[in-house]
Amino acid sequence: MATKPSIPKGTRDFSPVEMAKRNYIFNTIREVYHLYGFQQIETPSMEMLSTLMGKYGEEGDKLLFKIQNSGDYFSGLTDEELLSRNAIKLASKFCEKGLRYDLTVPFARYVVMHRDEITFPFKRYQIQPVWRADRPQKGRYREFYQCDADVVGSDSLLNEVELMQIIDTVFTRFGIRVCIKINNRKILSGIAEIIGEADKIVDITVAIDKLDKIGLDNVNAELKEKGISNEAIGKLQPIILLSGNNEEKLSTLKEVLVNSETGLKGVEESEFILSTLRNLGLKNEMELDLTLARGLNYYTGAIFEVKALDVQIGSITGGGRYDNLTGVFGMSGVSGVGISFGADRIFDVLNQLDLYPKEAVNSTQLLFINFGEKEAAFSLEILLQVRAAGIRAEIFPDAGKMKKQMGYANSKAIPFVALVGENEMHEGKVTLKNMETGEQKLVSPKELISELS
Amino acid sequence: MATKPSIPKGTRDFSPVEMAKRNYIFNTIREVYHLYGFQQIETPSMEMLSTLMGKYGEEGDKLLFKIQNSGDYFSGLTDEELLSRNAIKLASKFCEKGLRYDLTVPFARYVVMHRDEITFPFKRYQIQPVWRADRPQKGRYREFYQCDADVVGSDSLLNEVELMQIIDTVFTRFGIRVCIKINNRKILSGIAEIIGEADKIVDITVAIDKLDKIGLDNVNAELKEKGISNEAIGKLQPIILLSGNNEEKLSTLKEVLVNSETGLKGVEESEFILSTLRNLGLKNEMELDLTLARGLNYYTGAIFEVKALDVQIGSITGGGRYDNLTGVFGMSGVSGVGISFGADRIFDVLNQLDLYPKEAVNSTQLLFINFGEKEAAFSLEILLQVRAAGIRAEIFPDAGKMKKQMGYANSKAIPFVALVGENEMHEGKVTLKNMETGEQKLVSPKELISELS
Repeated sequence: MATKPSIPKGTRDFSPVEMAKRNYIFNTIREVYHLYGFQQIETPSMEMLSTLMGKYGEEGDKLLFKIQNSGDYFSGLTDEELLSRNAIKLASKFCEKGLRYDLTVPFARYVVMHRDEITFPFKRYQIQPVWRADRPQKGRYREFYQCDADVVGSDSLLNEVELMQIIDTVFTRFGIRVCIKINNRKILSGIAEIIGEADKIVDITVAIDKLDKIGLDNVNAELKEKGISNEAIGKLQPIILLSGNNEEKLSTLKEVLVNSETGLKGVEESEFILSTLRNLGLKNEMELDLTLARGLNYYTGAIFEVKALDVQIGSITGGGRYDNLTGVFGMSGVSGVGISFGADRIFDVLNQLDLYPKEAVNSTQLLFINFGEKEAAFSLEILLQVRAAGIRAEIFPDAGKMKKQMGYANSKAIPFVALVGENEMHEGKVTLKNMETGEQKLVSPKELISELS
Repeated sequence: MATKPSIPKGTRDFSPVEMAKRNYIFNTIREVYHLYGFQQIETPSMEMLSTLMGKYGEEGDKLLFKIQNSGDYFSGLTDEELLSRNAIKLASKFCEKGLRYDLTVPFARYVVMHRDEITFPFKRYQIQPVWRADRPQKGRYREFYQCDADVVGSDSLLNEVELMQIIDTVFTRFGIRVCIKINNRKILSGIAEIIGEADKIVDITVAIDKLDKIGLDNVNAELKEKGISNEAIGKLQPIILLSGNNEEKLSTLKEVLVNSETGLKGVEESEFILSTLRNLGLKNEMELDLTLARGLNYYTGAIFEVKALDVQIGSITGGGRYDNLTGVFGMSGVSGVGISFGADRIFDVLNQLDLYPKEAVNSTQLLFINFGEKEAAFSLEILLQVRAAGIRAEIFPDAGKMKKQMGYANSKAIPFVALVGENEMHEGKVTLKNMETGEQKLVSPKELISELS
């Protein structure tokens, strides 16, 4: 009967200390989202497979966790079908539901289903777990949280501006120094357009990205190898060598892209975003980075990515503008722009840089040592006042050995301990011990509260 | 391609207003848990089916949502097995994981797996969704949240006392008047013992519960019908007619149960809990109620249940003491006591009584109307100061029609609107409009902030 339990691979238990840290992350992000007028929604963990399938590519479909139908999931299946053992095809017979793979598709589904209740522009955020049947590896889990904010139903670039402010504020609050990288899909399209190699845009950005490492000659060689013409490579030179501050880069791009309407639009958008932000006192640097090409097929305007400056780690936040969120569900014309904070990576960065504020991780502030029934009864009445003052406090439930009780305080990192014996009861006071300094003093309940508030 | 989307039956989307209300509930419970030194943990949504199966009875096993194995889930199955179409038996071949059914079994699994890191007594809380493939009906969902707190590794009745304080504090904060009912499994065992009908204890409590409705004669008739002897029914009379306040009830029980050691222990425990609480200023009434028999097979000591006084609804919180949480996973000797708040029912009660505090549901406090690019740029700089002061504020992203922008403020119930035109910009001020009274005044950014803080 007694089995040694385990948890599914790629999933995690979170201990009290880990949870306190995670809550600090979620609460910080949530608070900033609120400051900017975003409202939370939640969608079910399960969606119909018809909602999820075909939205993440063939590979994504395979990574969906599918939930077996209740009852007789064999009904309606012929023996022949069963014996075909076609795992992929039969999955859709055995299962009609799956766990959500991201927050974007459920959000699109939400917008379509609730279009009549929603006032646009709709500024929503969502902090919920998602599931992917990916091969687990360091830093990659099968269950993890996403923290998305999107504005849908507005084309205004002010949304991009405010999302950059949100990113800046969140990382400033965390104390993580970052570089906020920005690009624009329209600039990339413009580049592809003027060199006549529209389908090579990914190859081009990958090659440009290597300039620092391999040098201009090798970048050009790689472009040639990818089948890009000499003429096109020639036109690309000012873009590969693009340098200077954001204004200088944009001014070069304006010249290079002079014959691409789309490209110039991308430059203009980036100019608006960057120049508007210049007056808004960002604490972190914004950098126009043409090598940024995330989710190229999905984004249609601005693209963002955040890199931590003091830790070697992939991007810790990303996002961009997309044109047609809900088209796949039959509702067209809903464009939007969004960002997503990578909570697990931010967790790692905060850990590595040891940036968690003490008060975020601390739980109980005061422990009453239990010396017996009478003393405990006396302590409970003081606890009542202490807690009414908002102080997180507890009493050790059993009148056990002092050493055990003190060990409990230490293992929970409780900074203060209250000792109540005969003397204290007689005087109506408690002995307050500072666990860090070892200092002890006799205080009234009132003094106790002001000491800890 | 375009399909009309839906969500799985028994699941729900939560709108911004619903989420704000739910967060108010979760945050209130969480805050009180913290005040009493409970720490949060989280466990994965999926558990191994070997962890879940056999813990909830045969019926429960059927209600588990099972997750189909990734890859070729047919491997290792013979044609014969497949053609047997034995849905229940083959489920365990197709699936090795399932969604958690409650928070208790995952918690037990957590305690066993992390026994070496945990300092006991372990006061943990957990607020997470659970899933049951139950037939959906009004108020019953296939995905819903549980909000559990348990203390494990301590036999002290102080834990029961503090859990009652937690319940009292939470409902006082909600403004919901409740009756906290308490019973004790040992008293029920004692009763069964003295009348020699140990296996009839459920029938007995069900019959006693009907006293008010059907009268003593009918209760006795029902007991007889259930096969309880005349002699036993005679002995039961003082218990069926048990009345008075809690002290009076306990004193009667002490006489009736004089020959049952177990029964007297239950009386003594209840006496300790109730008398200790008497000095701790509970705002709600505690009632000893012998008809309370929830989860009889599971609980071994105190049993709790909370009824709302002003709304007709089932119990909105429950819990009790259990002896052997982790035995099924091979770790014995871990007793504990816990409570669980029913968030969905509390949501309904707060709605019916209209008890949500305004500030809990309000989101954005201030909307800047967008009159054009220049005005927006000016507004963004004021927004910077406003948000730095902690005020939740936004600017309508598009310089659209006034009516549309005002409609947006109304639909989000934003109480203040800031108007910034040529004049205001010239003076470095904004016109602040109170959306409730219609009152308008010209204020400096500083005055704006103090007005809204």
